[in-house]
Amino acid sequence: MENALGRYPVSITIPVAWGEMDAMQHVNNVVYLRWFESARIAYFEKSGLQAGLDDLSVGPILARSTVDYILPVTYPDTVRVEIAVTKMGRSSFEMSYRLWSEALQKVAAKGDAVIVNYDYQAGKSVPLDDRTRGAIHALEASAPARPA
Amino acid sequence: MENALGRYPVSITIPVAWGEMDAMQHVNNVVYLRWFESARIAYFEKSGLQAGLDDLSVGPILARSTVDYILPVTYPDTVRVEIAVTKMGRSSFEMSYRLWSEALQKVAAKGDAVIVNYDYQAGKSVPLDDRTRGAIHALEASAPARPA
Amino acid sequence: MENALGRYPVSITIPVAWGEMDAMQHVNNVVYLRWFESARIAYFEKSGLQAGLDDLSVGPILARSTVDYILPVTYPDTVRVEIAVTKMGRSSFEMSYRLWSEALQKVAAKGDAVIVNYDYQAGKSVPLDDRTRGAIHALEASAPARPA
Amino acid sequence: MENALGRYPVSITIPVAWGEMDAMQHVNNVVYLRWFESARIAYFEKSGLQAGLDDLSVGPILARSTVDYILPVTYPDTVRVEIAVTKMGRSSFEMSYRLWSEALQKVAAKGDAVIVNYDYQAGKSVPLDDRTRGAIHALEASAPARPA
Repeated sequence: MENALGRYPVSITIPVAWGEMDAMQHVNNVVYLRWFESARIAYFEKSGLQAGLDDLSVGPILARSTVDYILPVTYPDTVRVEIAVTKMGRSSFEMSYRLWSEALQKVAAKGDAVIVNYDYQAGKSVPLDDRTRGAIHALEASAPARPA
Repeated sequence: MENALGRYPVSITIPVAWGEMDAMQHVNNVVYLRWFESARIAYFEKSGLQAGLDDLSVGPILARSTVDYILPVTYPDTVRVEIAVTKMGRSSFEMSYRLWSEALQKVAAKGDAVIVNYDYQAGKSVPLDDRTRGAIHALEASAPARPA
Repeated sequence: MENALGRYPVSITIPVAWGEMDAMQHVNNVVYLRWFESARIAYFEKSGLQAGLDDLSVGPILARSTVDYILPVTYPDTVRVEIAVTKMGRSSFEMSYRLWSEALQKVAAKGDAVIVNYDYQAGKSVPLDDRTRGAIHALEASAPARPA
Repeated sequence: MENALGRYPVSITIPVAWGEMDAMQHVNNVVYLRWFESARIAYFEKSGLQAGLDDLSVGPILARSTVDYILPVTYPDTVRVEIAVTKMGRSSFEMSYRLWSEALQKVAAKGDAVIVNYDYQAGKSVPLDDRTRGAIHALEASAPARPA
């Protein structure tokens, strides 16, 4: 998985809403987690990780979220959220996000997440199956190298 | 149901969050619907209307929402949302909200909703059963008269 | 302004976020007001109505919002929010929204708003100036007729 | 500041809103940052850190947020968010949050934040003045020791 660092195989584009700004007149800190979530869901879909809403027996749950706020984002803008798996464990993995502001033409935030593969019936984490593991590896391998 | 007008049998109290203010530095217009929703759910619970999340066969759905913004609300404040059923139909009913600002000591907003009793399997509205109808009437009758 | 009915001179496109769904597993009723707000801001910008955040002396304020929920929206989807001014008063005007779901290929919601031109210093509504009135008329006149 | 660890001089209580649950039928991960923000603002107010909205020359900005999700929170519930400063730097400091669920009678989440004292005019971080530093120390010293 080392090769995955610096590459982002999945990215989504989201328009900033005026109403996402708070009284300080830039986008509220909470909104970044919503943007990251949308990227995470897109990644889960592409890798087949996301169990459907009808089959909640085993699926990924979010154990930890980190946001590094680098530059304030304001309306109007469009952000691109890029996401990669950066570390694979037995029953968990780590993801990294990068938030690109079109208006600023700069990275406005970064983030990380710890995701646990969870059995909702048994109430405990379970090892990632080989199919999921393979799907993540294939998706990460598909990411073009990004110039440092 | 005429008697119900001007009485609010259910009310809830909610602290205003700083982050609910937008760039105009008062609470964003969207937040009022969240406050109204919380009052509606409290009413549904008290009257036994709210089907559990596991039993989604028949339950109330929101068909229409109206908000009248009277005075801007700002942090810090605590709002009290009062709610009543103001009109009963065969398979739908209407509710009215009143939002009281503790800081302003005034009514800061009013609202209305149309709720339809919906059969999710059949995909259509169905008449309110007698138990639900009776529960709403009992709840409304319990509301103290409010001085005009 | 009669001609404006049925035409929407401004529209915006917004991806539905997974996290905007609530426990009923469709987009929460509150989110529609955020979508409408984004369309309203886009309209204000196009017509020059939106005062900058630094100049809050006179500007449009939202006095009333209505949402008619027609069909539930679920993730994944992209919505298009269309907006028009449907009625002009002396110091206020009315707008109508239409929410189109790409996934459903149907109108999923409609809405209305009453907007008041407000002098924040004086604390009261003020007549719309001729420049603003003209800009709205020009924008509405630019909308292609929509087949009924 | 060592003594501050394990003590929370400021805490706030917030009712969980039904609409804060997502399609997984527990409170969405994003909401925790809103709860933490409300506790942070309460702390800033108590310590005199929060510059008013009219005086944005120098004030605290959020540089980093972390949330550790321990147990899912569901409606109905009331959460208590506790907050402490855990480390003081020259122009920044760290805070820790603990989220207590009344319904579960357990800690449902923890979190951390890095706050930078920022001069908005100069566009850079500036040292915390002695008054602010003293106010934080006094507030932390007032916290009762919490049994480990």
